[in-house]
Amino acid sequence: MPYQDTQRQTPFLDRITAPHDLKGLSNADLRLLADELRAEVVEAVSQTGGHLGSSLGVVELTVALHAVFDTPRDKLIWDVGHQCYPHKVLTGRRDRMHTLRQEGGISGFTKRSESEYDPFGAAHSSTSISAALGFTVGRDMGQPTGDAIAVIGDGSISAGMAYEAMNNAGAEGRRMFVILNDNEMSIAPPVGAMSSYLSGLYGSPLGSLQQVAEGFEAALPGPLRDHARRARQMVTGAVGAQGTLFEELGFQYVGPINGHDMDQLMNVLRAARTRATGPVLIHCCTVKGKGYAPAEQSADKYHGVGKFTVACGTQAKKRPNAPSYTKVFGEALTKLADHDPRIVGISAAMPGGTGMDILARAHPKRMFDVGIAEQHAVTFAAGMAASGLKPFCAIYSTFLQRGYDQVVHDVALQNLPVRFAIDRAGLVGADGATHAGAFDVGYLAALPNMTVMAAADEAELVHMVATAAAHDSGPIAFRYPRGEGEGVPMPEVGEVLEIGKGRVLFEGTDVAILSFGAHLGECLKAAKKLEAQGLSVTLADARFAKPLDRNLLHRLVRKHRALITVEQGARGGFGAMVLHDLAGEGLLDGSLAIRTMTLPDRFIDQAAPDAMYADAGLTATDIAATAMQAVGHRSARMPGV
Amino acid sequence: MPYQDTQRQTPFLDRITAPHDLKGLSNADLRLLADELRAEVVEAVSQTGGHLGSSLGVVELTVALHAVFDTPRDKLIWDVGHQCYPHKVLTGRRDRMHTLRQEGGISGFTKRSESEYDPFGAAHSSTSISAALGFTVGRDMGQPTGDAIAVIGDGSISAGMAYEAMNNAGAEGRRMFVILNDNEMSIAPPVGAMSSYLSGLYGSPLGSLQQVAEGFEAALPGPLRDHARRARQMVTGAVGAQGTLFEELGFQYVGPINGHDMDQLMNVLRAARTRATGPVLIHCCTVKGKGYAPAEQSADKYHGVGKFTVACGTQAKKRPNAPSYTKVFGEALTKLADHDPRIVGISAAMPGGTGMDILARAHPKRMFDVGIAEQHAVTFAAGMAASGLKPFCAIYSTFLQRGYDQVVHDVALQNLPVRFAIDRAGLVGADGATHAGAFDVGYLAALPNMTVMAAADEAELVHMVATAAAHDSGPIAFRYPRGEGEGVPMPEVGEVLEIGKGRVLFEGTDVAILSFGAHLGECLKAAKKLEAQGLSVTLADARFAKPLDRNLLHRLVRKHRALITVEQGARGGFGAMVLHDLAGEGLLDGSLAIRTMTLPDRFIDQAAPDAMYADAGLTATDIAATAMQAVGHRSARMPGV
Repeated sequence: MPYQDTQRQTPFLDRITAPHDLKGLSNADLRLLADELRAEVVEAVSQTGGHLGSSLGVVELTVALHAVFDTPRDKLIWDVGHQCYPHKVLTGRRDRMHTLRQEGGISGFTKRSESEYDPFGAAHSSTSISAALGFTVGRDMGQPTGDAIAVIGDGSISAGMAYEAMNNAGAEGRRMFVILNDNEMSIAPPVGAMSSYLSGLYGSPLGSLQQVAEGFEAALPGPLRDHARRARQMVTGAVGAQGTLFEELGFQYVGPINGHDMDQLMNVLRAARTRATGPVLIHCCTVKGKGYAPAEQSADKYHGVGKFTVACGTQAKKRPNAPSYTKVFGEALTKLADHDPRIVGISAAMPGGTGMDILARAHPKRMFDVGIAEQHAVTFAAGMAASGLKPFCAIYSTFLQRGYDQVVHDVALQNLPVRFAIDRAGLVGADGATHAGAFDVGYLAALPNMTVMAAADEAELVHMVATAAAHDSGPIAFRYPRGEGEGVPMPEVGEVLEIGKGRVLFEGTDVAILSFGAHLGECLKAAKKLEAQGLSVTLADARFAKPLDRNLLHRLVRKHRALITVEQGARGGFGAMVLHDLAGEGLLDGSLAIRTMTLPDRFIDQAAPDAMYADAGLTATDIAATAMQAVGHRSARMPGV
Repeated sequence: MPYQDTQRQTPFLDRITAPHDLKGLSNADLRLLADELRAEVVEAVSQTGGHLGSSLGVVELTVALHAVFDTPRDKLIWDVGHQCYPHKVLTGRRDRMHTLRQEGGISGFTKRSESEYDPFGAAHSSTSISAALGFTVGRDMGQPTGDAIAVIGDGSISAGMAYEAMNNAGAEGRRMFVILNDNEMSIAPPVGAMSSYLSGLYGSPLGSLQQVAEGFEAALPGPLRDHARRARQMVTGAVGAQGTLFEELGFQYVGPINGHDMDQLMNVLRAARTRATGPVLIHCCTVKGKGYAPAEQSADKYHGVGKFTVACGTQAKKRPNAPSYTKVFGEALTKLADHDPRIVGISAAMPGGTGMDILARAHPKRMFDVGIAEQHAVTFAAGMAASGLKPFCAIYSTFLQRGYDQVVHDVALQNLPVRFAIDRAGLVGADGATHAGAFDVGYLAALPNMTVMAAADEAELVHMVATAAAHDSGPIAFRYPRGEGEGVPMPEVGEVLEIGKGRVLFEGTDVAILSFGAHLGECLKAAKKLEAQGLSVTLADARFAKPLDRNLLHRLVRKHRALITVEQGARGGFGAMVLHDLAGEGLLDGSLAIRTMTLPDRFIDQAAPDAMYADAGLTATDIAATAMQAVGHRSARMPGV
């Protein structure tokens, strides 16, 4: 398929200003429109980077859904939302696609504040069915809302939350639609034959949806009947024959259908829309990266890409200045695991994202990818710890929220030595507010028995992995940011840190800056600015939010006029623990000026991480200005303030 | 069945000091032992109160499991754990049963620190399969552990977490056992017939478990074959034919069997233990309250009871001094719902516990009980809010931890007006540490867009329900404790409070006590003690942890020498928000003495709530002493200090 952007013609797409413009088009024209839309998405993402593969897989489905349903009155809810690029193009955001995932631009996910066509935003997985049921109840109770349609992938539907929602939606029995976007399989002939049959069947004007489904297998010719049964069993991979599962949960099951065949899509969606009386699941098979050869041929189907050249698909790779924290973690853990057979790793569908793939390559039987199942991941790890193993549970900060009760009830309360490797702590860049790791320090440090660390740089991370491995007396967590390290010299072997002991980088007399985690570099810059103003500065790295280094705190309080804590997280975290502790000791009773610098009390939209921290008021200049104000140099002019 | 405690004979039970003493007994003797054990449990719980019905349902199962498996090397994991009383009697805790759920006594749940026979504690539901898989992996990796057996109820297995665990355990394919304790149905004849058949089949020395199951339906005589299929479909209630579901998830399914028939239990468990090579699910039907007529005849099967008279089952009901917070909430909400058709209620399997049953009686179509599914409950509510409804999501503080990511990602981030009614905030009494509502203020106040209130008494709760109903601009949460209110006069109609505005009860000049929530009464007592010492005291009720009443805070700071915050929650909550705010305003730079009184950094074991708060250091005497120390009266002798 030629993608010559300079010569690309888009006569159909140019006529679409909103989804209602699709209503008059024939299936053939919709197909042509889909081709243009696919080229448009490839072109746009080549400029910005983004989740290309998932979006290419749903181009036809997006067109068909908007052609059949009456958005925005009907509520189209994309699970996770990273496959919504074609949807954004069709719903009035075509001219902003070049700002995708950029500062000030449109989000890489669906977002309520962005468009009335995004009735429910997402970014974390498996929420769409719950939300769709909520809209459905709203409609049934007289709210100005039409049908709700959740589009959910085969990975997302395996999470417990989706099961809870299906279970409830099935029992409620209300008319609603779930499209299972299944891209685990290719459209093999048997399935294709069956779905052609299905498509024709649904397109016929007679028979209710219920009758059609009931009579379906019986009505098939003999050989195809076996195919139908087998197809149901093969389509959903690890979970087993989910076709049946959906029916057991009270859904009308339709499919599988070919999600790239516009005739099938239109016929099935029209029939479902016309006839459904209860919850319907339409099983739709698609190919990730469909229609763009470099994506289809790539192992990851261009799941997430940087900028690339459309003609050949070559991605522009930035040469890294330092190894990523993720890789440093994975390698440090693997090195320890080589010598300690009790170390095991757990990932919730993110082995590559967390560096657990490195452990898996070295010790395939000691890394457990449990799928999108953070609740289970945490308690599974707790069970392993209770049996005597040393589990490292690597989950992004924002996703560990999914397993919070399990951290409280199964790990902390039982004081079991589960090691939490918390990647993507702090602000994360292009993925924006939904992926920010803002709350973990607070929600973990509040828990009895829990030890909480943050790595100031990638060498510190190596020490913390070693510290966690050695810490057998209770749970321990260590957080580190997304992206590249600081480029510091790396230790050969991780050193086991003393629990609850920070370190002082240099010592002064006026202002103490106490950093927790990866903002240490920015604190160092701030210290230099303050020294340039004639102040004598102490810079310390707390390492631990819990237990706090009380000796260090006392020294900082007693020897300085001002103490500034700095962290890449929300209120209620490290700074709060320091304040509680000092208050309890009576150390706030004197004339110390104390400030806690945290993320502000608002969500921060996507931009480069540095720009996000600037937005958050956490630059070196901000830190220095805060210190100056605290120490009473109100009139001094700061460079850059 | 006569329960004459004075004449009760326990010849079999007297011979059991540990589970290995069961090994030599015949099935007939085990049956007699079970009868004695049942009487023992009834007798014990009649003295202490507790979860009687669930424990009576598993008496035979408990005996059989300990007779067949090799505990504590084999890991027997009771889901939720409230059915573990017979297990406790058999595992060395018989002489402590009279201390059940009492201060200093044994826990009402399983607890690792209590016995080596409790390999994994619980109290929240649906964790057992994850933990059992963890132990299983430990065994397979050489840890000194035998088989893992999870015993889980039909309600608990419907939670997403259990589904995630089944999904993973099925894919792992390791030898482990899940006992589905299904007490939704009685042992009706068809099931009995089938299970007798099954029992005999499994007792036979030939054939592997796999072959038996595969050949099972085909081998049955014609009429029974239909029964077998139908039985599978009828046994699991709302979720549909879970027998099939388990198989789809990769489990070998055995059952249903009669969980009160010792021969069946022993035969099936022995066969399973001998032959299983992968994950096996044994579907075991039991009757809640079995064998104690007053329990069997009661509507709730004596799920949770107070002390009672064994002969007649009459429960000693304490006459309440004031209505419970739960009832006040339910009635206030229902009154508002009478006049506002947009109000709906959501409960996660706790309509009675949360007062949502009151709404359901008045407006049956506007209360949604979604089952044990907190993740779905929260996002379902978010969808409803997005559609224009006014959802009240009533979940205990400790269980809302299960839906934390959904509160962050679906509610707070999208600023959707979901109302969280947070019952059981603070320490809860006999249910102990696992049910404490300790962390909600911290994990909610950290979230942008969230408003967080706590009710000082039941009249305040009525106002807060009205305030939440009127608050359409974003999410709002209000917390209140377990148990009776303070007995204050009740308002006819709830008043809509000004958001972020506290109230001053009386105003002095030396010490300010700022209470957040239901500890106001204790703060009042503390104020009186301080006044008796000649101090002039201000007492204020913050009402809001977020947004804070900054005017009130400034006034308290400027006009007093000391400020004491008091809350029924952990560090990182209300006190932390006050400290952050004052630090940011520079209001800690002067000579104010500030103390934040919170729950301590340890889990508090069960006792009466007052005793638990005394343990936590939060009595009026503690508060007064802290204030005296802060204000510098170190030498003054406090009454009672």
